[in-house]
Amino acid sequence: MLTDKPDGTGRITISVDAMGGDKGPEAVVAGLVLSAHKNPDIEFILHGDQTVLGPLVARAGPALAGRCVVRHAERSVTMDEKPSQVVRNGQDSSMWSAIDCVRDGEAEVAVSCGNTGALMALSMIRLRKLPGINRPAIACLWPSRNPQGFNVMLDVGADIRADAEDLLQYAFMGASYARNGLGLARPRVGLLNVGTEEHKGRPELRAAQELLADAQERGNYAFVGFVEGGDIPGDRVDVIVTDGFTGNVALKTGEGTARLIRDFLRDAFNKTPLSRVAALLALTSLKRLQKRIDPRQVNGGVFLGLNGTVIKSHGAADAVGVSAAVKLAFQLARSGFRDRLAARIAAGNAPATDTAAAHPAGEEAG
Amino acid sequence: MLTDKPDGTGRITISVDAMGGDKGPEAVVAGLVLSAHKNPDIEFILHGDQTVLGPLVARAGPALAGRCVVRHAERSVTMDEKPSQVVRNGQDSSMWSAIDCVRDGEAEVAVSCGNTGALMALSMIRLRKLPGINRPAIACLWPSRNPQGFNVMLDVGADIRADAEDLLQYAFMGASYARNGLGLARPRVGLLNVGTEEHKGRPELRAAQELLADAQERGNYAFVGFVEGGDIPGDRVDVIVTDGFTGNVALKTGEGTARLIRDFLRDAFNKTPLSRVAALLALTSLKRLQKRIDPRQVNGGVFLGLNGTVIKSHGAADAVGVSAAVKLAFQLARSGFRDRLAARIAAGNAPATDTAAAHPAGEEAG
Repeated sequence: MLTDKPDGTGRITISVDAMGGDKGPEAVVAGLVLSAHKNPDIEFILHGDQTVLGPLVARAGPALAGRCVVRHAERSVTMDEKPSQVVRNGQDSSMWSAIDCVRDGEAEVAVSCGNTGALMALSMIRLRKLPGINRPAIACLWPSRNPQGFNVMLDVGADIRADAEDLLQYAFMGASYARNGLGLARPRVGLLNVGTEEHKGRPELRAAQELLADAQERGNYAFVGFVEGGDIPGDRVDVIVTDGFTGNVALKTGEGTARLIRDFLRDAFNKTPLSRVAALLALTSLKRLQKRIDPRQVNGGVFLGLNGTVIKSHGAADAVGVSAAVKLAFQLARSGFRDRLAARIAAGNAPATDTAAAHPAGEEAG
Repeated sequence: MLTDKPDGTGRITISVDAMGGDKGPEAVVAGLVLSAHKNPDIEFILHGDQTVLGPLVARAGPALAGRCVVRHAERSVTMDEKPSQVVRNGQDSSMWSAIDCVRDGEAEVAVSCGNTGALMALSMIRLRKLPGINRPAIACLWPSRNPQGFNVMLDVGADIRADAEDLLQYAFMGASYARNGLGLARPRVGLLNVGTEEHKGRPELRAAQELLADAQERGNYAFVGFVEGGDIPGDRVDVIVTDGFTGNVALKTGEGTARLIRDFLRDAFNKTPLSRVAALLALTSLKRLQKRIDPRQVNGGVFLGLNGTVIKSHGAADAVGVSAAVKLAFQLARSGFRDRLAARIAAGNAPATDTAAAHPAGEEAG
């Protein structure tokens, strides 16, 4: 194992489930090649069918040479398998193997493009919840008007329920993720609701509002109160806390809207000869826009609240998407995120211990 | 009163609350002028401060001459007034007066840019719920990939709760709205969830799924099962049924995402001299795009489930937005929507009675 060195040096090992994505192991390996080219400090353990993966890695040539170990798994988890089935019968799957690599300390973070429900269920069973955590959550990054370019939203689909205490834990975890993943010293946290007035919304939201306001110091965040759907891509807030049902619908609605506009834009520019000329002239501008709203660039839902970090890459991720998820995995491992988050949750009443920017990291990660 | 003639002839009277919008009565009157220019069959009763509205209407000149009656109201409902306060003390407000015009049969539809909660509460008290309706709902139109250009979603904020029976009523009302507002003979209805598999989601959604499937014939719709956030702007479904909390978050998330992309697009085209030239060349294309995703063009949440139709225009609506809400009001009045919807709800077990396209409308509206 290449040890986790949160002081910013040393190699980082990422455990990657090569199977189960819509575009197959080819896209995954191509993504690893992209990441390996950009980042000399990264290594991989790749899980899946050896007869498929061996040749793919060999063909990748020097980029992965000596930096990618293939670990054979008999089968892959399919997209329509029920989580409960996978927990019972998934021991020989690449997903299980990829998670166990983190459990056993061989890798810092696991990445998979596979079945979200199965990945969460297996992660819960194999890594176990952090002490003090009731419901783990999935956090996503969202293009925003904020200087850091992205906001964090959680939960976006680990669990369809969340009570006030769960939402408080999400605030702690989301703020910790924003500190370590986005480099924000004191993130602004908001609670998603249908209005910003204090009397609005469901009872558990009004209860959570008080909990989140009281815990600002312990959680090292600034609470901005209720926020609305329009604030998710906005600049009023850095971390949006919500239950997994609402968060999942919001995430998919936002993605769907972005795709719709992108397609309408393409139509508009293809309509007339003049607009096609304009599109050519505007190519750089359009690419810049595309990059800012490209879901592949913010690919990777992070599972929070477990003894180990797992990243769910989009099922339809191509090489660029896989590489973005790997980059996120590297960044979180490098910052010592797992231990910082655990410390934050454990010491609910202690002063801030997970601000990478504020302290030499090695002293405080435990 | 100019009577409702669902055979497509005769004048239609719209009752308009001129106060309470962010842009003031000037924007509202300007919107009426736009509508009056386009549509000779429309008349208005305008509610608000006579000393303000009188001169505004006079200045509008021939467009509104003889087609716009001003009805004085002492005060306007503010955006931060609680609905309960308005219900108790709002008798002298322009909002109350605008709704009562529909109640008293002087106008077919009421339109207001004001406080949503107050407008819903007043509408419930003054118009009363349709017999058989438990929770009224607000339905919005959403730009989509479907041939009709829009999908219907409800509830987007009338109530934060909805049980399975409520969701079934939303399906009936949403399908009726899609038939009369979008001209779809047999709309496809879907139930918003976090996945399309039958076992997913909250218990009330699984119960609602069975109710909606069983009621397809009675409701004259095709049930497509569970849909996800990404389907809201898609082409798998015409009517998206959800509770008012989820629907409101989704609506605002979609609007916020569209605004973000529009601003990013503007930035991208302003970046370099070349991109500014390209923007000039692409002006027509960009305007076409803008029109397809402009929230002003689909302005107007329709309150469904009451004895009368009320349209909530966006609080920030300008003249174009107000005119779009008025157009929608006209269209629904012309189709005899109110009576068709009431008949549909009343005769839950009877065969289809509200398809404008399929039958001569006059025979079936009662």
